[in-house]
Amino acid sequence: MLGRRYPGQNCSAARTLELVGERWSLLIVRDAMFAGITRFTDFQRSLDIAPNVLAKRLGEFVGAGIFELRPGSGGSRTEYVLTRKGRELQPIIVALTEWGNRWADQDDNPITFEHEGCGGQVALRMECSCCDGQPSPVEVKRGPVGPGEPTSQQKARPG
Amino acid sequence: MLGRRYPGQNCSAARTLELVGERWSLLIVRDAMFAGITRFTDFQRSLDIAPNVLAKRLGEFVGAGIFELRPGSGGSRTEYVLTRKGRELQPIIVALTEWGNRWADQDDNPITFEHEGCGGQVALRMECSCCDGQPSPVEVKRGPVGPGEPTSQQKARPG
Repeated sequence: MLGRRYPGQNCSAARTLELVGERWSLLIVRDAMFAGITRFTDFQRSLDIAPNVLAKRLGEFVGAGIFELRPGSGGSRTEYVLTRKGRELQPIIVALTEWGNRWADQDDNPITFEHEGCGGQVALRMECSCCDGQPSPVEVKRGPVGPGEPTSQQKARPG
Repeated sequence: MLGRRYPGQNCSAARTLELVGERWSLLIVRDAMFAGITRFTDFQRSLDIAPNVLAKRLGEFVGAGIFELRPGSGGSRTEYVLTRKGRELQPIIVALTEWGNRWADQDDNPITFEHEGCGGQVALRMECSCCDGQPSPVEVKRGPVGPGEPTSQQKARPG
């Protein structure tokens, strides 16, 4: 359905990137998720994006079940609303933001996330289900793969 | 430095996407992070990617401080090794994978992550620093922004 495929990659991350990895895609999701934007013209104004590109992205998102179309209230224009599948993209947006806060924010103006109601700051944690630890990146490895499926390493380093 | 910019977006997620949002970029990081790949030819074989595209991505990653170049051991070819900045992209890869496992894995062959040593399964959690809860996507909102910086919503919905 989408143009940007990774057909040789047997990998859930690649499958996700096929659906949300195009230019502007995740910023459209961000605006829907955290700014409550639902209308075409509001996405366009927020992102300063070409209308044909925005229409293509939103159409693909609806086709993929990430957004759904709803008739606008009071006869106003159609609204694009995140589905549960779309809302669950939140950790991807938060992970991109947290990394950017730390490593790519030139203005030292970090973006934070809050728990609605209690008002506490929300952050992503890597958690181990066994020891309850929060392993650092070098302590995390890919788990076992199914029978007959070569890992990338095995494919890349024959013999 | 990179071609794919979002100049109008005052947002850490957009800054991150400028560095890692190009086609293939995050799959290169994935291979380095979870398959231990360091050599150009091994990335090429694993990803089946055009050499000029791979060279461009790796060159940009080195320029951005996400990979560093190391001389290969025993006079072998140069190796590309993730820096700390690069390793800290891990939550982004894991978030993409977890979403793909749930929503885009056509083969029902989910990819898991393990805590090296203890062997427990590792997963991402959204955690609230105040109530220790794990808020669902609809319970998380963007935190306060700095003075003078309009939110996307304010920009998109004037008046």
